[in-house]
Amino acid sequence: MHIRRIHHVAVAHGDDSPLIGALVDHAGLTVTETEYGEGFTERMWPVGASYVQTLEATGDGIIERSLTSRGPGLHHLAFEVDDVEAAVADLRDAGVRVIDEAPRRVGHTLVAFVHPSAFGGVLVELVEELPASDLN
Amino acid sequence: MHIRRIHHVAVAHGDDSPLIGALVDHAGLTVTETEYGEGFTERMWPVGASYVQTLEATGDGIIERSLTSRGPGLHHLAFEVDDVEAAVADLRDAGVRVIDEAPRRVGHTLVAFVHPSAFGGVLVELVEELPASDLN
Repeated sequence: MHIRRIHHVAVAHGDDSPLIGALVDHAGLTVTETEYGEGFTERMWPVGASYVQTLEATGDGIIERSLTSRGPGLHHLAFEVDDVEAAVADLRDAGVRVIDEAPRRVGHTLVAFVHPSAFGGVLVELVEELPASDLN
Repeated sequence: MHIRRIHHVAVAHGDDSPLIGALVDHAGLTVTETEYGEGFTERMWPVGASYVQTLEATGDGIIERSLTSRGPGLHHLAFEVDDVEAAVADLRDAGVRVIDEAPRRVGHTLVAFVHPSAFGGVLVELVEELPASDLN
């Protein structure tokens, strides 16, 4: 696969976390996109050519489970690739365990998660930005 | 403070980790810098305008202790700032707990770590790239 950039670094937190206030007040960042998943709110904070992504648990779901098992903090690392379907196929051919056998559409991206066992305990997400002409 | 970019995302691992092999074979990355700390080897892997930084425990030290307490995986997030000394002063004035009261010289950078309590459990490093004229 060809990795273009770090697309985002994701952080899991609860609603009592100082994280949001610290990103605004100390880091000087601002939210440009907010999405709502099952039991969590996702916010994107541009930093240079990448983003910090905050994942706030709002109820039962993967983020609340992650907070329970591992506590708040760094959650996953997302790389932008040219073609996420081809990247997943290459990984599977190499015997790598992927979580999403087929890419999933999330907003204006296609994404697939790779099992953390493949990258030494790091949950890696592959992201392909869809051209505006593909968005419908 | 003004954050220019995500400078690097650091991952802690042991010598039996599949991480290095996965970064080479699956992610297609290469190491451009290697540094040796107390009990760890640090490698920088360029990705777009940022780096993945791998921290391999090689003996007693902060990385081995991190592996013991938290296991392998994402370790810290580093932001490049214009002026790390001014950024630390601003944080201290705001009552934020910083680990390095004064920036430390590491290679061709000045760095300071902020306590993870400030950013919701994320260990944040501030990095200032020194101009070549300051390197001696």
